[in-house]
Amino acid sequence: MRILLYRSDGNVAPWADDFARNLPGAQCVTWSGGDKLPPCDYAVVWAPPEAMLRELAEVKAIFLMGAGADALLKNGALPRHVPVVRLGDAGMGVQMGEYVVHAVLRHFRRFDQYDDQAAVGEWRPLAAHERDTFTVGVMGAGALGRRVLDCLRPFGFPLQAWKRTDDAIDGVRCFAGDDGLDAFLRSTHVVVCMLPLTEATANILNRANLGKLPRGAYVINVARGAHLAEPDLLAYIQSGHIAGATLDVFRNEPLPAQHPFWEEPRITITPHISALTLRDESVRQIAGKIGQLERGEPVADVVDRELGY
Amino acid sequence: MRILLYRSDGNVAPWADDFARNLPGAQCVTWSGGDKLPPCDYAVVWAPPEAMLRELAEVKAIFLMGAGADALLKNGALPRHVPVVRLGDAGMGVQMGEYVVHAVLRHFRRFDQYDDQAAVGEWRPLAAHERDTFTVGVMGAGALGRRVLDCLRPFGFPLQAWKRTDDAIDGVRCFAGDDGLDAFLRSTHVVVCMLPLTEATANILNRANLGKLPRGAYVINVARGAHLAEPDLLAYIQSGHIAGATLDVFRNEPLPAQHPFWEEPRITITPHISALTLRDESVRQIAGKIGQLERGEPVADVVDRELGY
Repeated sequence: MRILLYRSDGNVAPWADDFARNLPGAQCVTWSGGDKLPPCDYAVVWAPPEAMLRELAEVKAIFLMGAGADALLKNGALPRHVPVVRLGDAGMGVQMGEYVVHAVLRHFRRFDQYDDQAAVGEWRPLAAHERDTFTVGVMGAGALGRRVLDCLRPFGFPLQAWKRTDDAIDGVRCFAGDDGLDAFLRSTHVVVCMLPLTEATANILNRANLGKLPRGAYVINVARGAHLAEPDLLAYIQSGHIAGATLDVFRNEPLPAQHPFWEEPRITITPHISALTLRDESVRQIAGKIGQLERGEPVADVVDRELGY
Repeated sequence: MRILLYRSDGNVAPWADDFARNLPGAQCVTWSGGDKLPPCDYAVVWAPPEAMLRELAEVKAIFLMGAGADALLKNGALPRHVPVVRLGDAGMGVQMGEYVVHAVLRHFRRFDQYDDQAAVGEWRPLAAHERDTFTVGVMGAGALGRRVLDCLRPFGFPLQAWKRTDDAIDGVRCFAGDDGLDAFLRSTHVVVCMLPLTEATANILNRANLGKLPRGAYVINVARGAHLAEPDLLAYIQSGHIAGATLDVFRNEPLPAQHPFWEEPRITITPHISALTLRDESVRQIAGKIGQLERGEPVADVVDRELGY
C-alpha cells in the first residue's frame, strides 16, 4: 500500500516516520510539485494545491491533517467521488477545552482586570459575576464541542449548546437547527463558536445574531474567522452591548497590523493556537481508519459534501 | 435559642436576615463592643476581638465564617473547651478550582506571553509545554483541595497530592506526611498550596523545600501568606530555578506598595480573592450544623486544636 503525504509547509518527514511505525506494511511517498504525482492508494494532506488535488481521483480516500474541511471543499479541483476524511478529536478537544475554560474563567473572575490593577500596584477586590446567570453556550457540539462542555462541567455554570441535530447531551440545555438559534442566543451569556465553516454557518456571528445576545455578553471564537462579522463585533463592544471577546481565528491570518482589534483592550487575540494538530495522535487515528477501510468497515469523520463538514 | 453574630467589619445585618430564614426559631443578637456581651447559645464570628472571645466560655460552639481557623486559634483569649467549627466547602471549593485551573492553564498554554505579544501587535505561535510532565501537585487535600483536583481532572495533567493521612484519591498519586514531602516536591511541576496554616505548615514553602522542586517549576498559593518564604521564592525566580508564581495571599495584606513582588513580571498578584465567603451557603451550612448539635449529632469541620485546623 502506498500513502501519499503532502503538507503545504513541506514538513512531511516526521509524518512519514510515524506512519512507518503505525502501518509497517505501507510505503510513504511525497510530492514536491513539478513532477507527475506518484501513484498511491491513500492521500494524507494539509492545504494541497489544485494541481495535486486534480490527480487524486483514483485514491481510495483523502485524509485531512486537521478537523476543518472548509478550505478543501471550496477547492474546485477536489475529485467529486473520493471520500474525504477529517480528523476526529485526536487531542484537539482537550486543547480547545483548555483554551475555552481559560477564557471563560478569566472573564468570569475578572482576572484580566486584576492583572491591570497589579500592573499599577493596586490591591482591590472586585465584585464577582453571578454564576447562576453566567450561561455558557457552545455553538457546534461535535466531538470537540462536547469535549469543551466536559471541561466546563466542574465549574457549575449553566451550560447550553446549539447544534444541527436534536440529540440530548447530559446536563446541557440543547437547542437545534435554525428554529432554535434565536432562543439559544437570547439566553447565552458567553457564546463559544466551535462550528464547522459551511455555507450555512459563514458569517453566523453577524450584526443581527450578535444583537440577540443579552447585554454584557462575551464572545469566544475558536472555529474560523469567517464565522464572525468583525466590524459588527467591534461596534457592539464599543457600544457596550458586548463586554468583550477572546478570538483565536480571524478573516485574515496573521491578523493584519492595521486591524482595529489590536487596539481594542476588550478583545483578547491569540495567533490561531487554540488546538494544534498532534502528529502522534493524528497518525495513529488515520492509520486506524486506513485499516478499517481496507477491511471494508465504516470509518468515522467522513465529510458529508452536502452538509459541508 | 440565641445566636450571637459578629464580624470585624460590622456587616452582620444580612447574616441575621439569612439566619432568620434558615432557623426561624432562633433569635440573632449582635455586639458592637463596650457593653456586656448578650447571653447566647452559639456564636458565629469573623475576626472577633479578645474582649469578646473571653466571654464565650459558656456557648455550645463557636462557628467561623471562613475555612481557616489559624487566626482564632492563635488568640490566647479563645476558651479552651468550646468547640470551634470552621466552614466546610460552602461554595469556596469551586471558586478555588476556578482560580487554580485558570492559573495552571495560563502558564501551561503561555497565555500570559500571548497577552504580552498581542500588546505589541505580535502574531507568533509559541511552543507548547509537554502535558505528560506537567504534573500538578496539590498540598493539602481536604474538601477544598479535592474540589480543586476535580476541576483539574478533565485536562489530563498528571495529578498528585501531599497530605497528612494516607487515604487514596481516585486518579491522584498521593504522598503522605513528613516522609512523603521530598518525593512529592521533587516530582511536582506546578505546586498548589492549599494547606491549613498550623505550626507544622508555617513557612513550608521555604528555601530548602522550594529548592526540591524541579527546575522550571511554578508556584500557586491560595492558602495563607505565612506558608511561603517570600524572599526565597523571589530569589529562585530571579535565578531561573522557578519559572513564576501566582499568589493570592501574602505575609502582609494588602501587599505593601514597596514589596518587590509588584515589580516581578513573573509573579501574578491577586488581592486575596481566590475564594470569597458566600453568605447564603455559609448560613445554610451553619444552621444545619446547629440543628445537628441540638439533636446531639456529630458535626463536620470541628477544629482539632492539636492539629491546628
